[in-house]
Amino acid sequence: MMEPLLQELLSPVRDEVEEMSRFFERELAAPSAVLRELVGHLSRYKGKRLRGTEVLLVGKAFGPLGPEHVPVAAIVEMIHTATLVHDDVLDVASLRRGLASVNARYGNPTAVLLGDYIYAKAFHLSTGLRSQVASRLLAETTRTVCRGEIEQTAARYDFDLTEARYLELIDMKTASLHGAACELGARYAGEGEETALAVRGFGRDLGRAFQIVDDCLDLEGDERIVGKSLGTDVSEGKITLPVVHLLAGLSPRERLRVREIYLAEGIADRAATLAAEFDLRPGIEYAIQCADGSSRKALESLERLPAGPCRDALASLAEYVLCRRS
Amino acid sequence: MMEPLLQELLSPVRDEVEEMSRFFERELAAPSAVLRELVGHLSRYKGKRLRGTEVLLVGKAFGPLGPEHVPVAAIVEMIHTATLVHDDVLDVASLRRGLASVNARYGNPTAVLLGDYIYAKAFHLSTGLRSQVASRLLAETTRTVCRGEIEQTAARYDFDLTEARYLELIDMKTASLHGAACELGARYAGEGEETALAVRGFGRDLGRAFQIVDDCLDLEGDERIVGKSLGTDVSEGKITLPVVHLLAGLSPRERLRVREIYLAEGIADRAATLAAEFDLRPGIEYAIQCADGSSRKALESLERLPAGPCRDALASLAEYVLCRRS
Repeated sequence: MMEPLLQELLSPVRDEVEEMSRFFERELAAPSAVLRELVGHLSRYKGKRLRGTEVLLVGKAFGPLGPEHVPVAAIVEMIHTATLVHDDVLDVASLRRGLASVNARYGNPTAVLLGDYIYAKAFHLSTGLRSQVASRLLAETTRTVCRGEIEQTAARYDFDLTEARYLELIDMKTASLHGAACELGARYAGEGEETALAVRGFGRDLGRAFQIVDDCLDLEGDERIVGKSLGTDVSEGKITLPVVHLLAGLSPRERLRVREIYLAEGIADRAATLAAEFDLRPGIEYAIQCADGSSRKALESLERLPAGPCRDALASLAEYVLCRRS
Repeated sequence: MMEPLLQELLSPVRDEVEEMSRFFERELAAPSAVLRELVGHLSRYKGKRLRGTEVLLVGKAFGPLGPEHVPVAAIVEMIHTATLVHDDVLDVASLRRGLASVNARYGNPTAVLLGDYIYAKAFHLSTGLRSQVASRLLAETTRTVCRGEIEQTAARYDFDLTEARYLELIDMKTASLHGAACELGARYAGEGEETALAVRGFGRDLGRAFQIVDDCLDLEGDERIVGKSLGTDVSEGKITLPVVHLLAGLSPRERLRVREIYLAEGIADRAATLAAEFDLRPGIEYAIQCADGSSRKALESLERLPAGPCRDALASLAEYVLCRRS
């Protein structure tokens, strides 16, 4: 399921990641045949579990994990899974990690409700923890993620979208949950405000790099490798960083053509048409440079962590998100 | 906006209901133009706010309200509002309280995300309360509501649905949140386990009666009075109590015809066709009898509450849900 490189990289918390996965599946296994089937479908296409792993790596960087690190990591993954299930409804995606997405297989209503169910389960679990730190931070972060998604939806087909606004949107939508995951790793290790904020910064910068690369893969990736429907950003009207960069260098007439490719009736594969008519490489290279800058910034924040295999793994993770192909 | 009868009935907490509405709007007013517009649209079609009012009436029945009753009531209303926004996506409804639903006006993606945003906001507010009682109970209840909706979705077009199973589904989907609202009213008034469970029973029985009547209105109500799209249950394949009762009395051939009306291509108004070909009145009368029984049971649970205008209002509410026409 997971690439060998990533597996290797996460070895300092291999057992704990397993434990997190078991917790995740056990807690979501509901006493109802319908839910069991749906949740079973979910667990069959589990992904990288990066966010949960971030909780564990940050936590263990400070010493042995506390009893609530694994539940917190699983809760973070549940929230991420819920957003994925809803994302697939929004993107009208039919593939998720190489398998049919929930909405493609069971219909949109079920996908909306399953997402809601997982959110509610995650919040419920978080209120059972000894401190309210996780439930507060995660509810706030979920609100930020949703706000980012709403504002990104409203910014569809906005061909004047600036780079700054694009970054704001992905920071809300993606970076915030990575930031919260890392912050929780530190807080549940008993670390204070200053350290918690520094590792949150690490997570946010890593998350930003991750999303920029994700947006590049959507434009130029290979569906068989990435394992999810690609080209959906263009067909759904999302203007991502490579396209922001492309648009900035175009003549008014060319800009109109891009607009047409995004909007005109009767274009079957909009992403392929865009790639056929415009050279996307400079925009993608520019975006990867931005991701690289964000990844470097993440590495700097790591200096606050005690040296050791967990810090090394986090550093490798910040590099991995740049070169990943899926 | 609200019927005079209901207004009258809720007079013991009129000021507090106002306060709850202000809290609701203030907390959802976000620092972003997009969200402000969406939330503004929501508040323009606020409904009966029954569930929040239940928190306040139960709370005040035990004495002056505590400082957290109003926030708790608003949080309950937020959760209900989020489920409504998502329900409208599921039901492909275009009308909600006489105005365009969020999905009809802004599209499904925005409606899914706005629902998520409101849920997250509600959970975030609940984690700011002094005790974790509300956040635990509400997260658990939301999970139950979603489970009910998922299982109801899975039971669409199940023409063998039994009355017992129908009741189970509406108890999860609707009654549970009324039960939680009443329970929270008591718990935030410092009442103990036994009283909390009794008023939860009141809320559940009231909620069950409310949903049965709602399902009857969907079959035979007047869209201009009810203020939302009707006939959606039949067109979406939901088998509600009047139809369960109808099916039980039909010949195999007639049952096949009902099935056809629910499923065959090319029937524009399925609910009207059903009503034209079958006498729905006995089923509706039977359903109203069940609702009546549930309402009576609710009234019995009220005996645990101190006598006074709030208890009287709750009793009137249990009667109101039976005779409402919207």
